[in-house]
Amino acid sequence: MSVTAARGFRAAGVTAGLKASGRPDVALVVNDGPEHAAAAVFTSNRVEAAPVTWSRQVLADGRVDAVVLNSGGANACTGPEGFLDTHRTAEQVADRLDVSAGDVVVCSTGLIGERLPMDRLGAGIDDAAGRLSADGGALAAEAIMTTDTRSKQAAVTRDGWTVGGMAKGAGMLAPALATMLVVLTTDARVEADVLDRALRAATAQSFDRIDSDGCQSTNDTVVLLANGASEVAPGEDELAAALTQVCQDLARQLIGDAEGAHHDIRIEVVGAADEDDALEVGRSVARNNLFKCAVFGNDPNWGRVLAAVGTSAATFDPYRLDVAINGVQVCRAMGVGEPRELVDLTPREVHVLVDLHAGDAAATIWTNDLTHDYVHENSAYST
Amino acid sequence: MSVTAARGFRAAGVTAGLKASGRPDVALVVNDGPEHAAAAVFTSNRVEAAPVTWSRQVLADGRVDAVVLNSGGANACTGPEGFLDTHRTAEQVADRLDVSAGDVVVCSTGLIGERLPMDRLGAGIDDAAGRLSADGGALAAEAIMTTDTRSKQAAVTRDGWTVGGMAKGAGMLAPALATMLVVLTTDARVEADVLDRALRAATAQSFDRIDSDGCQSTNDTVVLLANGASEVAPGEDELAAALTQVCQDLARQLIGDAEGAHHDIRIEVVGAADEDDALEVGRSVARNNLFKCAVFGNDPNWGRVLAAVGTSAATFDPYRLDVAINGVQVCRAMGVGEPRELVDLTPREVHVLVDLHAGDAAATIWTNDLTHDYVHENSAYST
Repeated sequence: MSVTAARGFRAAGVTAGLKASGRPDVALVVNDGPEHAAAAVFTSNRVEAAPVTWSRQVLADGRVDAVVLNSGGANACTGPEGFLDTHRTAEQVADRLDVSAGDVVVCSTGLIGERLPMDRLGAGIDDAAGRLSADGGALAAEAIMTTDTRSKQAAVTRDGWTVGGMAKGAGMLAPALATMLVVLTTDARVEADVLDRALRAATAQSFDRIDSDGCQSTNDTVVLLANGASEVAPGEDELAAALTQVCQDLARQLIGDAEGAHHDIRIEVVGAADEDDALEVGRSVARNNLFKCAVFGNDPNWGRVLAAVGTSAATFDPYRLDVAINGVQVCRAMGVGEPRELVDLTPREVHVLVDLHAGDAAATIWTNDLTHDYVHENSAYST
Repeated sequence: MSVTAARGFRAAGVTAGLKASGRPDVALVVNDGPEHAAAAVFTSNRVEAAPVTWSRQVLADGRVDAVVLNSGGANACTGPEGFLDTHRTAEQVADRLDVSAGDVVVCSTGLIGERLPMDRLGAGIDDAAGRLSADGGALAAEAIMTTDTRSKQAAVTRDGWTVGGMAKGAGMLAPALATMLVVLTTDARVEADVLDRALRAATAQSFDRIDSDGCQSTNDTVVLLANGASEVAPGEDELAAALTQVCQDLARQLIGDAEGAHHDIRIEVVGAADEDDALEVGRSVARNNLFKCAVFGNDPNWGRVLAAVGTSAATFDPYRLDVAINGVQVCRAMGVGEPRELVDLTPREVHVLVDLHAGDAAATIWTNDLTHDYVHENSAYST
């Protein structure tokens, strides 16, 4: 059930003192081989953190031996000095593990615009390297938490091979990834190009479909390591399916622990002309602050769903739009349907069903409500 | 200083009982001529309210004799019955004023998805028609308020002619208009086509550049009436300049009274390759919930500005981005600048300056912070 669920991976999580809270803040994940294939997807934010710039280069040859992650500082917008800090971090990991720095992925998360305390981080890396263990997944998952209230881990085992993973991220969750660090491991035997395609297929159906607050981070990274230790070579579809299952499990955990959220909202768009239309409409609703406030207030204000749908460019006739909330058809053909008083919004999970009546395509986006706790957490984060 | 500042216009505001609060809720503005030219811009939301559908048709021939407005109900998503309600409203106004229903603009604001109580609205129209006065502008401005805490009025007088106006709107303010009803009047002599161009020029520089919460309404309407009563025919540029001044005054009042806001945030983007790029970057920052929460917490978290800028498609090199907040250059070349502790965010107005270093174009977007009061007001609106 963790990043060390697959054979041939070790991990550690330690406290280096990067976080004021004194909680664990440095994690290390090592691939012991025999193979060292890797794939990754990164934030599409053009303002990218130094570790993202570094790790893109590491991935260029499809080989990764280790991933080092820290919470307590994003090392974003820290200039050339920040990039040197990332480089030094990789060098130190490489030195301790006797691998090449060019095969070490670096991930950071925390406040933007502050240098990392390199002396503490260095001591943390030494400590973590000495504690690497095949049971270390849970500690590593704990060390990457920021405002997360619980660690996120998942794994599935197929016929002789396993995919495991860990994730962090509680704010800034948005399409095309989140502040979100995810490390996935598998002991399947996979060529690097297949690994890349399977990872992209899995993230498109999972992390790309959650949008907690519409804000995209500078540090998002999802990295997948494969070592072939199981000696099983699954087909690409089989691999993609297992990866998708683990990624969806982790994505669901991220939404379930999003900053300050009281509700997890599943926005299902059906009757779309194509999947892109369904996704666009889903995201438009997921980013409507007024609707998200209404859900927080247990108020089935379906007019705000319609208003959000109406701002999209998807193919539909507005006068045919239907909306149901938690099974109650509150809007029929852009007009009044069942009484809104019939909707019960007290459960944590809310289901919004939008029918565009424009085709057969469908897609689901997950988001959260907008709450006092969200405002509180995010108005006092850097101070 | 109001919608009756120009000669030849009368207005009234009365209490019809549409609002539970018992506050005024029906307004009437009448053009007494001699000319009856008009122009308007409406929401670009594809889910549009019945009064918007109606009023688009009224404007088709460029003539408007009267505008009737109600708060206490948006008459949006109310089906064919809702459209008939709007039609009946126009008919009743036409009957009382002895004009054609096809020359009566109807505007509504309030909750989506509920029918209007037509008996009360009808009595209100009768009452308002009997109280029309050249001093009625202030009462009309009061009657269109929803969650506004104060009425919004403005006027400028040029050489012998005047432009006046009123506005409402405290939430749902977004580019391409807001829930926002605006009535503008002028006693200048203007051809209908010139009036249309001047109005579009003015709204592009005012209402289109405020974005309180990224949500666009189903009911936005800005209507401009011109009667030539001054017998002065200003040039198009002169007219557009006066209109822009009144619209910017009203837009600034809208931002200053946005739902739950504690800060008015002026996002100035300079060094852009073109104005569209500057606007896109400004809107991206204006819609970043994390940054807006930080401002509420008086936290100059400039990393969130950078993260928002980085999600835009504008032309720039991220490594050259500069950001100043309230005059303190907190970010230079995507790196750390002056200490964030030097920034004082206690004043209501906050100035964010983003330099893209990509050209000579600039634009300013106004927004608000995201506060507990915003969440409170919008989580309990329809219940």
